[in-house]
Amino acid sequence: MPQGQPETVPDDGLTTRQRRNRPLLVVHTGEMKGKSTAAFGMALRGWNAGFSIGVFQFVKSAKWKVGEETALRALGDVHARTGQGGAVEWHKMGEGWSWARKQGSEDDHAAAAAEGWAEIARRLAAQTHDLYVLDEFTYPLDWGWVDVEEVVTALRQRPGRQHVVITGRRAPSVLVEAADLVVEMTKVKHPMDAGQKGQRGIEW
Amino acid sequence: MPQGQPETVPDDGLTTRQRRNRPLLVVHTGEMKGKSTAAFGMALRGWNAGFSIGVFQFVKSAKWKVGEETALRALGDVHARTGQGGAVEWHKMGEGWSWARKQGSEDDHAAAAAEGWAEIARRLAAQTHDLYVLDEFTYPLDWGWVDVEEVVTALRQRPGRQHVVITGRRAPSVLVEAADLVVEMTKVKHPMDAGQKGQRGIEW
Repeated sequence: MPQGQPETVPDDGLTTRQRRNRPLLVVHTGEMKGKSTAAFGMALRGWNAGFSIGVFQFVKSAKWKVGEETALRALGDVHARTGQGGAVEWHKMGEGWSWARKQGSEDDHAAAAAEGWAEIARRLAAQTHDLYVLDEFTYPLDWGWVDVEEVVTALRQRPGRQHVVITGRRAPSVLVEAADLVVEMTKVKHPMDAGQKGQRGIEW
Repeated sequence: MPQGQPETVPDDGLTTRQRRNRPLLVVHTGEMKGKSTAAFGMALRGWNAGFSIGVFQFVKSAKWKVGEETALRALGDVHARTGQGGAVEWHKMGEGWSWARKQGSEDDHAAAAAEGWAEIARRLAAQTHDLYVLDEFTYPLDWGWVDVEEVVTALRQRPGRQHVVITGRRAPSVLVEAADLVVEMTKVKHPMDAGQKGQRGIEW
């Protein structure tokens, strides 16, 4: 266990254990790589703790399956087969959310994003998962497809002990304000600056 | 596949494919969480691409098994059982490197770190793995336990197509200079600021 000691102990009436076990709202933002990667790394850790993991990808095309999806699904299979770790669900906007009826138009991205959020809100109310990864969710917020005030209210009011990680650039300030942990990934150097494109196993 | 286009195309005599497939040296540094988490997220992706993964933890105590270790070992087991993904090895300094003979003194951390690096250098020369995660390796470099010039030389001269990810604060400038991709994790907000300690599934 980590040795870190908080610098301040708030006057919130909670014991250290109660405070430690509060669910976290985490935001990974900034211009640089690593936002989603670190979120999926958190899912890895949560899986080991037996968390039910729900991943909701908001932007990447369903045609493009990232390596993390296959790997986390394999861990979900390990859980189903042996009971080790936690369950894993993975939903993608690009393929039509798997729980949603087919949209009228495949190009209706805004409606799809709103439907995705509505399902997440239902799951939060039902305490379906222990860890939610809302991958690239800042974009539909930034574009106004999903109302950020409604999202922040639902997140603040979520019951039980549900951790939520949201990734993407341009995280809205009200979301940052509501978050417990915000990490900004800052670019120092990128191989694309030297003319190198992405490669399998590294970029996807 | 990603749509990103490099802004410059270097005059290096390589085709786009050759340039794309160059092995990467990646550094995750900065004061904030997410450095190791994102590195293990990369291992998840590499596993799916069939990479042989070698994780070498330089600082965390062997008594403290992070969730990622169990989860990545479970993926290594999936590979051994079904052939899916890649092999996973995980070595920790705190337990004595599993390949090393017992050190004279358990407290001889500097010698242990040097022995760890020597083994990694042997593996790089032998092209043992496709992806190396040298977790918290910047600290033995920063403390002078391992010679950074020797490390950078070995990394620059490594044969074949071996990706290396190094994590930790205070990455030496010669290492940053040698790296292809450098991400700095910057703190925006941390729950410890509000008096909240770490919790299982999130922090470890």
